[in-house]
Amino acid sequence: MTVHLRRDLEFLKREILDMGAMVESAVNKAISALVDRREALAQEVLRGDDLIDDKEVAIELDCQKVLALHQPVASDLRFVLAVLKVNNDLERVGDLASHIAERAVSLAAKPALDLPSQFVEIGELTRRMMRECLDALVQTDAELARGVLDQDDGVDRCHRELFEALEARMIADPRVVSRALEVMACSRHLERVADLATNISEEVIYVASGEVVRHGRHG
Amino acid sequence: MTVHLRRDLEFLKREILDMGAMVESAVNKAISALVDRREALAQEVLRGDDLIDDKEVAIELDCQKVLALHQPVASDLRFVLAVLKVNNDLERVGDLASHIAERAVSLAAKPALDLPSQFVEIGELTRRMMRECLDALVQTDAELARGVLDQDDGVDRCHRELFEALEARMIADPRVVSRALEVMACSRHLERVADLATNISEEVIYVASGEVVRHGRHG
Repeated sequence: MTVHLRRDLEFLKREILDMGAMVESAVNKAISALVDRREALAQEVLRGDDLIDDKEVAIELDCQKVLALHQPVASDLRFVLAVLKVNNDLERVGDLASHIAERAVSLAAKPALDLPSQFVEIGELTRRMMRECLDALVQTDAELARGVLDQDDGVDRCHRELFEALEARMIADPRVVSRALEVMACSRHLERVADLATNISEEVIYVASGEVVRHGRHG
Repeated sequence: MTVHLRRDLEFLKREILDMGAMVESAVNKAISALVDRREALAQEVLRGDDLIDDKEVAIELDCQKVLALHQPVASDLRFVLAVLKVNNDLERVGDLASHIAERAVSLAAKPALDLPSQFVEIGELTRRMMRECLDALVQTDAELARGVLDQDDGVDRCHRELFEALEARMIADPRVVSRALEVMACSRHLERVADLATNISEEVIYVASGEVVRHGRHG
């Protein structure tokens, strides 16, 4: 590997980690904004989304430059392609954080709805998955990435339980329908964040080992 | 461009179009299965998803081979990177078709729920966007792709109206809550299919013109 290629790959790594940190912070704030009914925090997430979008475009152009300039092969090529995909996934996570923040604004203006315990649990699980998949990416740690994959079933289970709990409440009391639908939407957004953390982990495993583990083939 | 690179790029184009056709068919079947309560058709979609997943992995490996072997630059590089992204988007559309098919199976086993007119409309709009973004991709037609972007607002509007109509029914009659939630989920899946058709169109515009139109910068 030339010194220039090595330097550019290190730069890409720092950039994607920076993007990861921005997105992780957005998710954490969005969850807190919803749980604690803090509208100002939700607005902060919404204002930050443009920065995340700009960063995605910048990283993609950087990746293209590295490909065109150095024409990397083998594991270097895999790394650059993984950064492209992870970048895209992180931007989607940022969008989901914004969607949750929008709901937090809307819910904060309505009477408080007692959140089912599963909501907090989904929030915790999702935060942990995001944190660990980014750590795995920094360290090219396939074992850590595999650990993230194992956590996805827990999120799905929580999400199902939350749905059932809210559905029962809606049937019992039509006055909660509108708010319960908003909480369901947030739970679904978090479930998608967990899916994207899974995608990112699969990319890490691929970069680390060359093994394709998508589509549940790791199960 | 060497003869070999040209031949390999043509191959990638045929492969991604084939993937597009498989996915488009899955979406069409899933919508029909839900609207016409045809469980066998839904099962067909569910059985076909593995083929779509396999195809995604194969196309991604083909793209990597082209990059490693020919080290394309400029518009050829952009094209290969666009195929990688579109491939990923199409696989997600395939997943969404499966999710709709699962709901179709579940709903077919329950008493029929009168579908709001917006549902059929969202289905029609989404099908059209999928068809046109794939046509735009084949023909590298930026104008056609821009036309797809313009249709996304219509889907969002329909989806919102459908949500409001179903929410009102749920409040008025708790017996429809469970089925209405399933129809809402399908509408949301179709809305995401439309979003992915938008992503694909943005890639086409990028390949055709080098212009980045993501994140609503075309609006």
